[in-house]
Amino acid sequence: VYGLAARADAPIAHLVARITLLTDFGTQDGYVGVMKGVIATIFPGVTIDDVSHSIEPGDLTGAGRVLARYWKRYPPGSTHVVVVDPGVGTERRAIAVEAEGRFIVAPDNGVVSRVLDLCQDASIVSLENPEFLLVTRSSTFHGRDVFAPAAAFLASGVHLCRLGPAVAQPVRIEEPASIVEAGVMVGQVVALDRFGNLLTNLAGSSVTEGSGVEVDGRTVQVVSSYQDIPPESVGAIVNSDGVVEVAARDTPAAAILNAGLGTPVRIPDPVELPDL
Amino acid sequence: VYGLAARADAPIAHLVARITLLTDFGTQDGYVGVMKGVIATIFPGVTIDDVSHSIEPGDLTGAGRVLARYWKRYPPGSTHVVVVDPGVGTERRAIAVEAEGRFIVAPDNGVVSRVLDLCQDASIVSLENPEFLLVTRSSTFHGRDVFAPAAAFLASGVHLCRLGPAVAQPVRIEEPASIVEAGVMVGQVVALDRFGNLLTNLAGSSVTEGSGVEVDGRTVQVVSSYQDIPPESVGAIVNSDGVVEVAARDTPAAAILNAGLGTPVRIPDPVELPDL
Amino acid sequence: VYGLAARADAPIAHLVARITLLTDFGTQDGYVGVMKGVIATIFPGVTIDDVSHSIEPGDLTGAGRVLARYWKRYPPGSTHVVVVDPGVGTERRAIAVEAEGRFIVAPDNGVVSRVLDLCQDASIVSLENPEFLLVTRSSTFHGRDVFAPAAAFLASGVHLCRLGPAVAQPVRIEEPASIVEAGVMVGQVVALDRFGNLLTNLAGSSVTEGSGVEVDGRTVQVVSSYQDIPPESVGAIVNSDGVVEVAARDTPAAAILNAGLGTPVRIPDPVELPDL
Repeated sequence: VYGLAARADAPIAHLVARITLLTDFGTQDGYVGVMKGVIATIFPGVTIDDVSHSIEPGDLTGAGRVLARYWKRYPPGSTHVVVVDPGVGTERRAIAVEAEGRFIVAPDNGVVSRVLDLCQDASIVSLENPEFLLVTRSSTFHGRDVFAPAAAFLASGVHLCRLGPAVAQPVRIEEPASIVEAGVMVGQVVALDRFGNLLTNLAGSSVTEGSGVEVDGRTVQVVSSYQDIPPESVGAIVNSDGVVEVAARDTPAAAILNAGLGTPVRIPDPVELPDL
Repeated sequence: VYGLAARADAPIAHLVARITLLTDFGTQDGYVGVMKGVIATIFPGVTIDDVSHSIEPGDLTGAGRVLARYWKRYPPGSTHVVVVDPGVGTERRAIAVEAEGRFIVAPDNGVVSRVLDLCQDASIVSLENPEFLLVTRSSTFHGRDVFAPAAAFLASGVHLCRLGPAVAQPVRIEEPASIVEAGVMVGQVVALDRFGNLLTNLAGSSVTEGSGVEVDGRTVQVVSSYQDIPPESVGAIVNSDGVVEVAARDTPAAAILNAGLGTPVRIPDPVELPDL
Repeated sequence: VYGLAARADAPIAHLVARITLLTDFGTQDGYVGVMKGVIATIFPGVTIDDVSHSIEPGDLTGAGRVLARYWKRYPPGSTHVVVVDPGVGTERRAIAVEAEGRFIVAPDNGVVSRVLDLCQDASIVSLENPEFLLVTRSSTFHGRDVFAPAAAFLASGVHLCRLGPAVAQPVRIEEPASIVEAGVMVGQVVALDRFGNLLTNLAGSSVTEGSGVEVDGRTVQVVSSYQDIPPESVGAIVNSDGVVEVAARDTPAAAILNAGLGTPVRIPDPVELPDL
């Protein structure tokens, strides 16, 4: 909302375009520097924001969850690059997505599934127009040869449709959904964060403070802030994504509960049964 | 000093505003991307510099020490965001500080203590004006909902006093001071750096090359560069912050001396007794 | 190639100058923030791109290899700062290099050797003009006192020759070259990347798909993409730098082959004998 007025001034708006990077490259090998250099060569005035280069190698589901968290927090006109690409060098497509005014450039391996779930009318093209790719294309580093140039051209104002033909059926990743069985919501742990907190696929709207959540059969009380969790214990909280998270204060909740990805989490008395 | 002339040109200065980020979030969960997106939405032209996202979770003292190192190295008009916030969601205040022309936005938990020690006439306000906060406020992620928007508005020229009421008594962290006992300076290790060097709270002005420093009773000689430290040994050096640091060349000094946070360090013959 | 036209417009070009940072500092101590602040004070409008702060402490060869990967991917006018500096505080020189229109600022310890190998007509000066250094110079942090200011001044248009006298003989690091013995190319593993892939000093032009490479006597087949490597096995591939890399899909190749830096790698039937 704020600041968009400034973007109406075209020459300035051109200068303030932003590209974000999300990869599993780490930083120590310099591949991130290569991508930034390719982008800066095509579009010298662009701002490049690192989101992360420490995605677990090949973790498409995790990267997709992270992308879903920030893509729409950026203003329209922003371009998000995602390179988690175990299939680099094979026939897998490279795609660009336009969704609610933001662009996403990524391999067609399901890493944008969550964004596509959230935005039904996204436009998707396959990155095939050689005019917008590097001339030399390796079989191991499409971050440099395909995704960085495509992002730089999109950010500089090239229309999505010029990058290649439309894609009707992008690759999707199925993610576990929570279900309701006999009035009980049944979900699971779908991610761990840096602090060892357990993120679930249960909507936060189905719990209230003081109610209980069962993690692998053990009841955990819903609290309203991390500091309401007793020392050495765990608590459930509605997190900033609006989902139920099981957290602890010092020892990671994952360790206290011996829980991890896939651990079942149930809400015996859901407040409302949301349509998920 | 340099470059400030350019900032007198208002429209350009507007384009070159900088915001820095210091958090304990890690990068792998995407929260950093969310904060950058919120900032870029409010102030599209701003430059965002990462300082670190690898502060130990909840380490207020360490984050405060790091902040004290760089805040004033940035030019006036810069805005520093610090989110190390174990009390998020409780009644703890969120504050903005104006000190020597720079802005700092942080939880009111003592993380800005050191800066306030260095700058007695800082202005401090509590971030309460909803006009400059996100509408939806979670109980777990004020980096997104409070600190990022406040920083973006400050950087874009909103006056500090508009963000909320003045704070007279910000939360302070007491840090161990060095003392003088019978002519001997007595301090301790207050931090370890990436290289395993031991940072003390002893002023560098109290040692000279060739004099000795005692680490837990063991004498370490003061040298003038890291390369003057013998292999497999340790040396004391006046570091870039102007304090005594105990370092080694290959094996970390912390390991060689079996020392860590709180290990006593003494200067038997201080050159000058500084007023600390 | 692209975007260079925009740089012909001087005032805009001034705004879009970029400086990159490559260090072994880690981020947790805030030294990166200090360097960025010094740069932003001298040249408020500059864009600062992180390449990496996670170079192994003191790893000059590794840092030089990373630098060689990205320095020329950035457009002319860019300035690359490299601070891997075990000799800080000694008599080692600090240098600035101009090579194919890019600038590099670094200690004179061999970290720019590879770039100088690639660019015979580079200009090199010793950073001695105090006008372009910080007034207070520590013996431990020339990233702040020497390299950051030099980079900021170069990026803002100060001519290389103003920073100090020419350097005729910069320090060089000898790196192991591959050789040809009785028609067999003999090289070695010279680096491991984040994924545990083994990078060699063997030119990719000497292998073809289906031919074999010997890693410590064990034959590895050359494939055209990572996905052509059988599960739990290894394959050789021509990587994005154009050299032979030995990779695996899940378990790191280094672990499968029990290989590391210096492990011999041979090409029994090289396709062409390149002049290296």
